[in-house]
Amino acid sequence: MRPVIGVGMIGYAFMGRTHSQAWRSVDAFFDLPLKPAMVALAGRSAEATAQAAEKLGWAHVETDWKHLIDRDDVQIIDICTPGDSHAEIAVAALEAGKHVICEKPLANTVAEAEAMAAAARAAAARGVRAMVAFNYRRVPAVALARKFVAEGRIGEIRHVRAQYLQDWIVEPEFPLVWRLQKDKAGSGALGDIGAHIIDIAQYITGERLAGVSGLTETFVKERPLAAGSTGLSAGSGAGRGAGRGAVTVDDAALFIGRLSGGGLASFEATRFASGRKNAMRIEVNGSLGSLAFDFEAMNELWFHDHTLDSAEAGFRRVLVTEPSHPYVGAWWPPGHGLGYEHSFTHEVKDFIEAIAAGTAPEPSFDEGLRVQRVLAAVEQSAADGSRFTTVEDS
Amino acid sequence: MRPVIGVGMIGYAFMGRTHSQAWRSVDAFFDLPLKPAMVALAGRSAEATAQAAEKLGWAHVETDWKHLIDRDDVQIIDICTPGDSHAEIAVAALEAGKHVICEKPLANTVAEAEAMAAAARAAAARGVRAMVAFNYRRVPAVALARKFVAEGRIGEIRHVRAQYLQDWIVEPEFPLVWRLQKDKAGSGALGDIGAHIIDIAQYITGERLAGVSGLTETFVKERPLAAGSTGLSAGSGAGRGAGRGAVTVDDAALFIGRLSGGGLASFEATRFASGRKNAMRIEVNGSLGSLAFDFEAMNELWFHDHTLDSAEAGFRRVLVTEPSHPYVGAWWPPGHGLGYEHSFTHEVKDFIEAIAAGTAPEPSFDEGLRVQRVLAAVEQSAADGSRFTTVEDS
Amino acid sequence: MRPVIGVGMIGYAFMGRTHSQAWRSVDAFFDLPLKPAMVALAGRSAEATAQAAEKLGWAHVETDWKHLIDRDDVQIIDICTPGDSHAEIAVAALEAGKHVICEKPLANTVAEAEAMAAAARAAAARGVRAMVAFNYRRVPAVALARKFVAEGRIGEIRHVRAQYLQDWIVEPEFPLVWRLQKDKAGSGALGDIGAHIIDIAQYITGERLAGVSGLTETFVKERPLAAGSTGLSAGSGAGRGAGRGAVTVDDAALFIGRLSGGGLASFEATRFASGRKNAMRIEVNGSLGSLAFDFEAMNELWFHDHTLDSAEAGFRRVLVTEPSHPYVGAWWPPGHGLGYEHSFTHEVKDFIEAIAAGTAPEPSFDEGLRVQRVLAAVEQSAADGSRFTTVEDS
Amino acid sequence: MRPVIGVGMIGYAFMGRTHSQAWRSVDAFFDLPLKPAMVALAGRSAEATAQAAEKLGWAHVETDWKHLIDRDDVQIIDICTPGDSHAEIAVAALEAGKHVICEKPLANTVAEAEAMAAAARAAAARGVRAMVAFNYRRVPAVALARKFVAEGRIGEIRHVRAQYLQDWIVEPEFPLVWRLQKDKAGSGALGDIGAHIIDIAQYITGERLAGVSGLTETFVKERPLAAGSTGLSAGSGAGRGAGRGAVTVDDAALFIGRLSGGGLASFEATRFASGRKNAMRIEVNGSLGSLAFDFEAMNELWFHDHTLDSAEAGFRRVLVTEPSHPYVGAWWPPGHGLGYEHSFTHEVKDFIEAIAAGTAPEPSFDEGLRVQRVLAAVEQSAADGSRFTTVEDS
Repeated sequence: MRPVIGVGMIGYAFMGRTHSQAWRSVDAFFDLPLKPAMVALAGRSAEATAQAAEKLGWAHVETDWKHLIDRDDVQIIDICTPGDSHAEIAVAALEAGKHVICEKPLANTVAEAEAMAAAARAAAARGVRAMVAFNYRRVPAVALARKFVAEGRIGEIRHVRAQYLQDWIVEPEFPLVWRLQKDKAGSGALGDIGAHIIDIAQYITGERLAGVSGLTETFVKERPLAAGSTGLSAGSGAGRGAGRGAVTVDDAALFIGRLSGGGLASFEATRFASGRKNAMRIEVNGSLGSLAFDFEAMNELWFHDHTLDSAEAGFRRVLVTEPSHPYVGAWWPPGHGLGYEHSFTHEVKDFIEAIAAGTAPEPSFDEGLRVQRVLAAVEQSAADGSRFTTVEDS
Repeated sequence: MRPVIGVGMIGYAFMGRTHSQAWRSVDAFFDLPLKPAMVALAGRSAEATAQAAEKLGWAHVETDWKHLIDRDDVQIIDICTPGDSHAEIAVAALEAGKHVICEKPLANTVAEAEAMAAAARAAAARGVRAMVAFNYRRVPAVALARKFVAEGRIGEIRHVRAQYLQDWIVEPEFPLVWRLQKDKAGSGALGDIGAHIIDIAQYITGERLAGVSGLTETFVKERPLAAGSTGLSAGSGAGRGAGRGAVTVDDAALFIGRLSGGGLASFEATRFASGRKNAMRIEVNGSLGSLAFDFEAMNELWFHDHTLDSAEAGFRRVLVTEPSHPYVGAWWPPGHGLGYEHSFTHEVKDFIEAIAAGTAPEPSFDEGLRVQRVLAAVEQSAADGSRFTTVEDS
Repeated sequence: MRPVIGVGMIGYAFMGRTHSQAWRSVDAFFDLPLKPAMVALAGRSAEATAQAAEKLGWAHVETDWKHLIDRDDVQIIDICTPGDSHAEIAVAALEAGKHVICEKPLANTVAEAEAMAAAARAAAARGVRAMVAFNYRRVPAVALARKFVAEGRIGEIRHVRAQYLQDWIVEPEFPLVWRLQKDKAGSGALGDIGAHIIDIAQYITGERLAGVSGLTETFVKERPLAAGSTGLSAGSGAGRGAGRGAVTVDDAALFIGRLSGGGLASFEATRFASGRKNAMRIEVNGSLGSLAFDFEAMNELWFHDHTLDSAEAGFRRVLVTEPSHPYVGAWWPPGHGLGYEHSFTHEVKDFIEAIAAGTAPEPSFDEGLRVQRVLAAVEQSAADGSRFTTVEDS
Repeated sequence: MRPVIGVGMIGYAFMGRTHSQAWRSVDAFFDLPLKPAMVALAGRSAEATAQAAEKLGWAHVETDWKHLIDRDDVQIIDICTPGDSHAEIAVAALEAGKHVICEKPLANTVAEAEAMAAAARAAAARGVRAMVAFNYRRVPAVALARKFVAEGRIGEIRHVRAQYLQDWIVEPEFPLVWRLQKDKAGSGALGDIGAHIIDIAQYITGERLAGVSGLTETFVKERPLAAGSTGLSAGSGAGRGAGRGAVTVDDAALFIGRLSGGGLASFEATRFASGRKNAMRIEVNGSLGSLAFDFEAMNELWFHDHTLDSAEAGFRRVLVTEPSHPYVGAWWPPGHGLGYEHSFTHEVKDFIEAIAAGTAPEPSFDEGLRVQRVLAAVEQSAADGSRFTTVEDS
C-alpha cells in the first residue's frame, strides 16, 4: 500500500551493522509513511560484501559506490565508511538526487564539511534531504533532556560538563588501527568521540560553543602495526602485524569554552580512562534546574528541579521508558530498557518521516559543519598554547 | 546453504512483538546452524492477524492454531498466547512433532504443567524439543551471575533476596484487564512476575526452593471493566468500559523459603511499588562473595568478591558489555548496552542451536513445572495461615 | 545560667563510646534548656572503668551501678550494658526517681520488657522520664521519611521492605562472642539488628506490625570460644580462646507480615550478607509515592513523588543536609554529611528537651515493649512451622 | 600523666565550630602523646567571643589575637579567620614560637603565602610546626585514594578530573557576603573551593600541576548588600541589607592543565551547579586502574582494578569504614559512616602527633604556597585569553 523507499548502504563494519539493524527493525515498530527496502550494500570486495549482505539482510551487492548511486531502486544513500571518503560520496549522491544519511563526523576537515554542507543546501532546494548521523541525539534520555531545556525547565544555562570516556586503547600494545592514523581518521579521540559530546551539548542546550581553549595529548606514541583494517571496536582482539608505527592522532583532548548564551562549558574526550567503557556523559546546570546523563546507564535521565523546596529537592532518576517519552511508545512497557542500536532505529525513522514530509531532517549537514568548526578550533587552540579561539560562524 | 527452519507463532500482543523482533534479528548477529524463517502467524481474527503479520514480518497467516501446526513449512511452534491455552497448544504441537517454545508461566495450573512436561519428555525421545521462555535467563548479566555461581566465585549460598516490583496498576481506576482475572491469568503478580524471580533464583543458584511460607493480598478489590482485551502492558492508556468487576487475582505476593542447599530466600512480587517500573532484582549472598542485579539497570551486574582484603573489597559494577560476556560478543563494543528485547533474541538463538545439536534446551518444561509447583505451594501456604509448605518434587 | 543535669552512664563498650560522644557534643550544637554534665561512669572493674572514664570524659567512677543511682549529682541514668541487665537497672533507677535512657533492645524477654514498661508508666506519673535508645530514628533521613509519611506525601501504605544486612561473622572462625550466646544476648541477628528495622518500620509508617510469619537459621553452629568479652563490633580482630562452643542464637531471621493499615511488610536481618557492612535499609511504597533509605548512605533519602507526571517522575536523591531538615540546622552547611554518632547526639538532645518540658520522650518503653512483642512473635512463628502469628497488643 | 598542650583559636564562625569539635573530640578516640587543652578563644567582640567560648568549650577569651599568642598556656595557634588576616597572624605566632595550624587557602595572595612559607621554614628550624588545614585530605576515602596511588595500584596517571560543585548562590538575590568581595576573600569559587581540589589532586597523585589554562566568570554581577558579616554557609538565610553592590570575585572557574608526570587534568569550581550541594569530586585514571570520589558520598571510594580480567572488572564501591582504613579504626564498626567534621578531628590528631614526634606535619605551608601559585596561574591565564600558563616552582 505504502510507497517503498529503497536504501543503499556503503560500508559494513561497525556502523554498517548498526544501520542495518535499524533499517531491518524500524518498520515493525513505527508507523512510517514510506516502507524502507534494504536494496543494496556496497563494498570493495565482492566476496566480503556479499557475505555481509547475506548476513545483514541486503538484497543486492555493489562493488563500486558510484553504481549504488546509479541504481533506480535506491533513493537513500547511507554512508558508513571512514571519514576520508564522506565528502566525495555524499556530494555525488546529493547531486544525483539521492537523499543522504552520513555517519559522523561529517568529514575529516572543515573544507570537506563546507563542500558537503553547500551540496546539502543546494540539494534541499530540489527536495533532496541530507542528515548527519549523530545517533546519540536519538537516545530517548537525550531527546528528553533537550525537551526539558526547550520547555524552560532548567532556566538559564550556567554550565555544561561533558565527557566521553573510553578505555579501549589503554594497553600500549593495542595495534595501530586506522582510527589511530591521521590520514584516515582526521583526528583521534577528539573527532571520533569528542564530536559526539560537542553535538549533544549544542543540541540539548540549543546554544552554540562560541569559543574554546584546548589541550591534546598522545600518551602512547608508537604501537604495533595492525593486521587487517579493523577499527577500535574490535577491542583488544584486533590483530597485530609485524613492526611498529607512529600514532598520529590524539589519545585525549580536553577543552573548556563559552556557550553562546554566556555559560561555561567543559569537555573531555579520551580513550585512556581505565574502567570507563563508553561513558558519554553530560551534565547541564541551569538557574532553575539541572540534568545529567551517562550513556553507560542509557535509559536514565537525572533531573534536578531547583524550583522545589530544597527540603525535598534532589536529582531524580527518571527511567526514560514511559510511553510519553520520546520514541519510547513504539517499544516496550515501562521499565523495559532500550539498547544502543535503538538510537539508530530512531534516526532512520526520523529521516524517513522528514523525506516523506518534505521537511529538513536534523542534524543537518550545516550542524555537522558546525561541529567540525569546533573540532578545528580546539586543534588550533591546542597548537597555539591553549589560547582561547573563537569558533567561526557558519 | 544452511537448512532453513520454519517458525510459526501464535499470538501477536506484547510477547508476540518481542518474539518477532527476536526471530527477525537473530540471524544477523549469530552464526546459526539453521536459518530461521518467519513462516506464519496465527490469530483468531483474520484481519487483525494479517495486519500484525505485515507489521511484524510474518509471511503467512492462519486463523486456527491447529492449521499452523499442520503446516509442513513450520517446524517450530512459538506460543505467545495467555496461559490458559498453553497446555492444549503445546501438547498438540509436540505430538505433531513440532519443536515448541512456550511463553511463561508454563501453564495456569500444576496439572496442566504436568501434562505439558510429560508431553515434552515423550517428544524428546523422538528428538522433538520443548523450551519454556523465561527470557530473563538470557539477559547477559543474569547469565554471567549464573556463571560466577557455577564457578564457585560466591561459595556456599546463604541468602537469596529477590523482588519483582512494578507500579502499573497503583491507580485504582486502572481497568480490569485479563491479567487481573483468575480464569484467564491463573494468578496475579505471583504467576506473572513472581514466576520470573523464582526461575532466575533457581537458575542462578543452581538450587531449588525446598519450601515456602507465603502471604498474598489484593489491595484494590474492584476495578472498572476494560474495553478491549489489552494486557497490563498497555499502561494507563488501557480503555475503560462501563461498569465494574471484581479483581480475582493477587496484587502482591510475598514469600520466604528455604533453598535445597540450606540457604534462606525472600521473594516479593508486586504491582503496587510506586516508582518501580520493572525492578526485577535479585541479590545472592554466599560465603565467598555476593551478586546483585536489577533489571532497571540491565547491563550491570554487581559483584562483591569476599576473598579480597576488606580494605579494598566492595560491590563492583561490572558493565556486562564485554565481548567475553555471555551473548555480548555478537553485538556492540564495550559500554554499548543491550535492551529488553535482546533477551528474546538470545533465547531463540539457544533454542535453534539446541534443535540443530539434538540437545535439550533449557529451561525445559520440567523446569517450568518446577516453577509452577512453587507458585502452587505459595498459594497453598497463603491460604493456610502462611504455614511452611514443602514444594513437591517433580 | 542554665540548670545543670547530671548524667551517669553504665557500660563503656561500643554503646558507651557512642553515648559519651553524644553527651560530650550535644551542648555545643544545640540550644538546650539544661546543661548536661558527664558526672560518672559505672563499671565492674575499677581500673578499666577509670581508664574509660578518663578517655571518654566522665568525671567520676563507680564500680556498682546501684551507687551510681544513689548519687545526688546524677539525674539521668544511661544504660549501655548487654540486654540481660537492662530490666533490673532500669526499674531500680526509675523507682529512685532517675530519668532513664536505655539501649535497645529494651530487654531480652517480653516479661522483662513488660516490667520495665510498667515501671516507666509509674515513673511518668511522677514526672520521671524513660526512653529506649533506638538511635536510627534520629538519623535525619529517617526522621525526614517519617515527616513525609505523616504529611501524607506517600498516601496509603502498601509495602514495607526492610533489611538489616551485615557480614561481620561470615567467617566460620569468628569467635563465639557474647552476642552469639542466647543467655546473654537473648537472640541473634533478630534481636540485635532486626529490632532496629522493626522499630523504624513502625516509626516511619506510624503503623504497627499486626502479625508475622518467620524463618530463622543458624548457618554456623559451632565456633571457637572467644578470649575476653568483646562484642561483634570488634570485627575479625576479636580474640579466640581454646576450644569451641555452640552458637545458641540465630544468624539470620526472615519474616513477612501485615501492617495495621493493611499493607504487606517484609523483613530480613542477617549477619551473613557478604559485602553488606551495615546496610539497614527500608523502602516504603504508598499510593502517592515511595521512600527508600540505606544506612550505608545515611545522608540520603530517596523519594518518589507518584503525583508527578510519569514523564518526569523518578526516585530523587534528597541529600538530607539542608538547614530545614530534622536536626541538620545545628550542624554544617548543605552537602556536609553527618555520621553514625550524630544519631546519638540527636537522641540525647531530644531526651533533655523532653525532661525539661515535662513531656514523654519517644520511643517510650511501651514502644520498646511493642518491638519486643514482634520479636517474640517471629520466634514463635519460626518455631511453629512459620505459621502466621498475631502480635499481641500492648 | 601525658603532657598537656594548650590550644588558642582565633575566629569562631563556620571553621571555628568545626575546629572546636575536633579539639573537643580527638582525645576520646585517638591515643595521643599530648593531651590538648582548649585554652582560649580570640575574637574582636568580648561579648560575642565569650558566648562562643561557652558554647564551643573554650576556657578563656581574648579580644586581641596578639594577647592569645602571648599566653604561656597556649602552644598551638589555630587560625580560623578570613584569608586576609592569615599572614600577619601566622607569621607573628611562628616568630613567637607557637605551632600554627592555619585554615585554607593559606593566604589571599602569593606574596603573603611566600612570607608565611618562609616563616614556617624558619620556625621549623627551631622545632616549631606549621600546617595548612586542607581538611579534605583527612577524609578516610581521600587518604585511602592516596594510599592506592602510592602503592602503584593505578599505575601511570593519565587523567585527573576534579570538580567542586555547589549551588549556594544560584539565587541572584543571595546577599553580597564577604566571600563575594575580592578585598576580603581574595577570589571567589576559585580560591574558596577550587583550592581544595587543587590540593587533593596534587595530594592523591603525588604530582604537581605544571601549567594551566583557565576561564572564570561572574554570572551575577550585582547583589543585595548583606546585613551582618555572615559567610556563604549561612545559606539563603543570610540577611539582606539596603542597597546593592558589585560582586568582585568569580562565581565559577574552569581550568585544564598538565601534571608534572605527563597526565592531563581538568578542574571546575562553581557555586552555580543547581542541585549539587558540596560535590567535591575527583576521578583519577591510570594505566592500571582508576579511583573516583564524591564528597556527597564521603564514606565511599570507587576503585577500578584494570589488572583484573575485563569480564569481572568494574568500579567497586569500597565503603571506607573498615578498621584497616586510614583513621577509621578509632571510630565505629564497619558500615558506620563518619561525617564532615571528622576530617578536622583527624587533622588535629596528625598535627599533635607531628608536634610530639618533632616531624613536619603535612600539608606544609610550602604546599599551601604551591596551591596559591596554581590559583595565581589560573587567574593570570584567564586574564590572558586562557593562554597556557606555567605554574611557578616554589
